[in-house]
Amino acid sequence: AIIFPLSSTVADTVPRFSKATLEYAETIRLDAPENNHAMRILESLTTEVGPRLAGGPNDARAVAWAKAKFTGLGFDEVWLEPVTFPTWQRGIETAEVLSPYPQPLSITALGNSIATPAEGLSANIIEFATLADLEASTNAKVAGKIVFINKAMSAHIDGADYGPTVGARSRGASAAAKLGAVGLLIRSVGTDHNRLAHTGYNGYEDGVEKIPAAALSVPDAILLSNMLKRGKPVSVKMNLGSGPGPEYTSYNVIGQINAKKKTNKYVLIGGHLDSWDLGTGAIDDGAGCAVTMAAAEYIARKKLPIMHNIRVVLFANEEQGLFGGNQYRDAHKADVKNIIAAAESDFGQGPVYALNSRVKPEALPLVQQMQKAMSGLNIKAGHNNGNGGPDLIALGAEGVAMFGLALDGTDYFDLHHTANDTFDKVEAERLNQTATSFAMFAFLAANAPSSFGSGEPYLVEKAKQATH
Amino acid sequence: AIIFPLSSTVADTVPRFSKATLEYAETIRLDAPENNHAMRILESLTTEVGPRLAGGPNDARAVAWAKAKFTGLGFDEVWLEPVTFPTWQRGIETAEVLSPYPQPLSITALGNSIATPAEGLSANIIEFATLADLEASTNAKVAGKIVFINKAMSAHIDGADYGPTVGARSRGASAAAKLGAVGLLIRSVGTDHNRLAHTGYNGYEDGVEKIPAAALSVPDAILLSNMLKRGKPVSVKMNLGSGPGPEYTSYNVIGQINAKKKTNKYVLIGGHLDSWDLGTGAIDDGAGCAVTMAAAEYIARKKLPIMHNIRVVLFANEEQGLFGGNQYRDAHKADVKNIIAAAESDFGQGPVYALNSRVKPEALPLVQQMQKAMSGLNIKAGHNNGNGGPDLIALGAEGVAMFGLALDGTDYFDLHHTANDTFDKVEAERLNQTATSFAMFAFLAANAPSSFGSGEPYLVEKAKQATH
Ligand SMILES: [Zn+2]
Ligand SMILES: [Zn+2]
Ligand SMILES: [Zn+2]
Ligand SMILES: [Zn+2]
Repeated sequence: AIIFPLSSTVADTVPRFSKATLEYAETIRLDAPENNHAMRILESLTTEVGPRLAGGPNDARAVAWAKAKFTGLGFDEVWLEPVTFPTWQRGIETAEVLSPYPQPLSITALGNSIATPAEGLSANIIEFATLADLEASTNAKVAGKIVFINKAMSAHIDGADYGPTVGARSRGASAAAKLGAVGLLIRSVGTDHNRLAHTGYNGYEDGVEKIPAAALSVPDAILLSNMLKRGKPVSVKMNLGSGPGPEYTSYNVIGQINAKKKTNKYVLIGGHLDSWDLGTGAIDDGAGCAVTMAAAEYIARKKLPIMHNIRVVLFANEEQGLFGGNQYRDAHKADVKNIIAAAESDFGQGPVYALNSRVKPEALPLVQQMQKAMSGLNIKAGHNNGNGGPDLIALGAEGVAMFGLALDGTDYFDLHHTANDTFDKVEAERLNQTATSFAMFAFLAANAPSSFGSGEPYLVEKAKQATH
Repeated sequence: AIIFPLSSTVADTVPRFSKATLEYAETIRLDAPENNHAMRILESLTTEVGPRLAGGPNDARAVAWAKAKFTGLGFDEVWLEPVTFPTWQRGIETAEVLSPYPQPLSITALGNSIATPAEGLSANIIEFATLADLEASTNAKVAGKIVFINKAMSAHIDGADYGPTVGARSRGASAAAKLGAVGLLIRSVGTDHNRLAHTGYNGYEDGVEKIPAAALSVPDAILLSNMLKRGKPVSVKMNLGSGPGPEYTSYNVIGQINAKKKTNKYVLIGGHLDSWDLGTGAIDDGAGCAVTMAAAEYIARKKLPIMHNIRVVLFANEEQGLFGGNQYRDAHKADVKNIIAAAESDFGQGPVYALNSRVKPEALPLVQQMQKAMSGLNIKAGHNNGNGGPDLIALGAEGVAMFGLALDGTDYFDLHHTANDTFDKVEAERLNQTATSFAMFAFLAANAPSSFGSGEPYLVEKAKQATH
């Protein structure tokens, strides 16, 4: 937590939000939870567009939806910025135990996985508890087998076990291939017990042979492990039809609410418009799009006075390599000082429980005042090593001041990257609190009396430390 | 609840369990929860056999497993009784919204459904809240469309909303076909929100055209309904590859623990060995097989004295028409008086919360003493209109005395007939309580000092009333 002596004799040098700004912020807190449009925006996106695999059949429809929705919500400016990337296509995905206990297994291809041969890939299974255990094994043990990494993930408010678990997904295929494995099956990176596997990006290491990679649902991982405990060789056949598609150009879709007095300075909020293809991308990251669109729209609809513009960016293709975030950095590198502060929502429906930041030390009193204003939403003080979200990593490296509205992710990884990521899981009370938190944040940041430090060397250095 | 004056002056005419029998029963209650084998039997069945569609690829393996398991558990007699039935095979099952909001839908074919044309069946959707609403509609509205019945199901300890909901599944296709519909989609008969559709038997009415029938997962039903609320025609394409297969002969697999003194009389307990094919049939009805096998095995292992034999029947093909139960009735019709009492476990993992019965009035004091003995397991008194379970309906009609060990089914329909019906959902404490309850029931019934009324006209009449 951030602690400052507020009752100081040098109080005059401490930056302060105006009394009027804080009073407006309080009206947002009291009024917005019932009066923002986040739920109906999210219902519209998931119903009218649905799954939004980057470069997939709904990508262009998602872009058209977002552009029309910004316009319909009354944003002052709406525009597109092109983002080009390689694509990946899912195909069939089946697996079965061949012996000694024939039965089907429920799997899903990891993003970027190559296909198996059309007739399938059949091999004996070798199980590892973790990626590290695999890496410590030998070619003699692994060669010719399908590697099965069975690392379970536990639930935490901040997703603390995602990092220790996700390596099996993002790096497991190449680690297995280095030891001669012919395929990879991982226990889903998820905290549920549903027979719905979790997809997500798998990166192949340069110079290492690519092997097909898929996730088993948690019940299937338990089943396969129980079979292996009996001591007999277990042979599995997997069929994946996935593989690379053509290069594609999508768009970051941007809507802006302008300050009355013309300015180039703006607060950036947003989420990513793409999703994985198995669900309708309700919590990842339809929720982030909806809460930030609703937050800005609320401020405009209520005609709340802002000194700086509020820009909502819906980033293209976060899932397969942060393409939208990197493009935005490239296009806007020259004027990062115009970005007052930035915050992305990409950790589910919320609620927000803490306000983290990455600002210059002199601006910390402002952060404290913001948190105090938001404390009525049960938002606690956080730390100053925050990051703004995956699509803001690139801007962060340029020294843009970041805010992390920490979302309660206790149940996020029950649904994350599965077919179960659908609108019916979203609770109005949680989403509305998150949208209200973003409205308060954006409104306050857009009325900040002094800089949070965007573009200053201190924040460039701090971002460098955070990513190394 | 059953209430009797026990402190009666005619106490001598009231049948009573012996003091020794009640003391042994108490040792079961105290010892068995930790010392029965239900969990490991169920783990073995679901791991080594898995899905058990009647007549499907694992039917013969399930029969072999059951025979070997009875033998391995030390049952005195183990045998098979053949059961012949028509089969049904699942094929591909996909659906998608064609317009106005193209996206995939998650469905599963209802058991017994015919296939669509190979190129799929495309038509506009017409939604009904209930089967009754469909039946009250007209040919003019329904003809040429795919009927969508969107009846939600609520959770209750006794599954009270299953009856009012399941008609859409079991009779919806013919009701729709009578009004000229070309296909049926129902909201899954289930209480969960997972994107896993619930299968189950669909019966075609004689003389009515057969149309393809499938269930949408609950999230997909909500999604489709939300699309329809927008007022534009919604067109869906469904592909089913299911259809009839050849006639097949499976087996009721039977294991018996014999009383020391040779007798033909026996207590019948059991479950059904078949399951639907989407999950591994852990709660439906691997649990029923496991708890009844474990109950009898416990009594044998502890050498508890019984006057009558205890017979465990694992019925073939319950799911597609009670074939095993009907065969058992046909094969044993002549000597139903040998069946002291019967009880099936087919409502999930438990725990047991009440003891229902269908016995002659003179035997009610015995039921009360049994419930009192079992009350330490939190089993309450029930009613005397109980039924013993689906596979015992046929025996019940012959007047066999029935016991209903009422299982807590509050979460049963979250998993029922879905891919999510897997072993990892089973909690040891719940399954052990159920197995212990069946052990106490079987032990007490096998030492009943007088008849419960099996074969007497009163119970034949009572069964007739219960099914009309
Ligand atoms: Zn995301
Ligand atoms: Zn994601
Ligand atoms: Zn059943
Ligand atoms: Zn069933």
